[in-house]
Amino acid sequence: MDFLGDWWTPLVLREVFFGTKRFDELQSGLSIGRNVLTERLRRLVGEGMLERRQYQERPPRYEYHLTEKGRDFYPVLLAMMRWGDRWLHGRKGAPILLRHAPCGELTKPELVCEHCRVPLRHEETSAELPDGRVPDLATRRTAARRARAGRS
Amino acid sequence: MDFLGDWWTPLVLREVFFGTKRFDELQSGLSIGRNVLTERLRRLVGEGMLERRQYQERPPRYEYHLTEKGRDFYPVLLAMMRWGDRWLHGRKGAPILLRHAPCGELTKPELVCEHCRVPLRHEETSAELPDGRVPDLATRRTAARRARAGRS
Repeated sequence: MDFLGDWWTPLVLREVFFGTKRFDELQSGLSIGRNVLTERLRRLVGEGMLERRQYQERPPRYEYHLTEKGRDFYPVLLAMMRWGDRWLHGRKGAPILLRHAPCGELTKPELVCEHCRVPLRHEETSAELPDGRVPDLATRRTAARRARAGRS
Repeated sequence: MDFLGDWWTPLVLREVFFGTKRFDELQSGLSIGRNVLTERLRRLVGEGMLERRQYQERPPRYEYHLTEKGRDFYPVLLAMMRWGDRWLHGRKGAPILLRHAPCGELTKPELVCEHCRVPLRHEETSAELPDGRVPDLATRRTAARRARAGRS
């Protein structure tokens, strides 16, 4: 997972998602140094999240556009924003709100099961390997539970 | 956002979410060095995502439990897993599947609007500041659009 660099990456992506595409605008929006931003952008382009497009010839200037891989990161970004609103911004409140065009409401994202549409809660989900086995640790815990049940 | 360290952090949290709580198990599950894991765990404890609990006295041994702040990170983790399944694992397929107890299905998380329950798409959402203004760039673009409309 180290491919994304540090946690500045989602902040850069957030700016691009909300319409900032040019280097200078990104720099002033994020208030970071040119070198740092250059490094982040190069990384995001290298990983195929962003695509660089020239929009001016003299002097050469570039815009950054989301690729399909980058656009697909949107749910991650929204989930992070929701978490950050609660745990990083707290009483100050969310710095950016989200308007949902189809219903017109200010919305918060909710993560639901694609089948039954119920919000996914940690206590109600479990990990499983593709071959149907549960991961190692769960096996061990099930074994321990069986052993306890056998003893009682 | 730099508070979380690097992108190893979600991998550590994923292990804890799926039941691995002890240092040695985390280390073998993640295949990373003790020093690196120690640093990650210290950071997660320092940030209030994990809580350290002693489970053995001689020698002293500790388990790591999710705090409320850590548990609340679950949607972010699920969204990241879904993205990773598509863009990092590709043909190999998802390394970990998710079973949803209430409906019994293998599920993928979907991010929906809390009001109308429709999946949130980037093209159908827009950013807004708490005072109702749209962020700077959007203002500028709206102005540009109005100017164009006025000319035509």
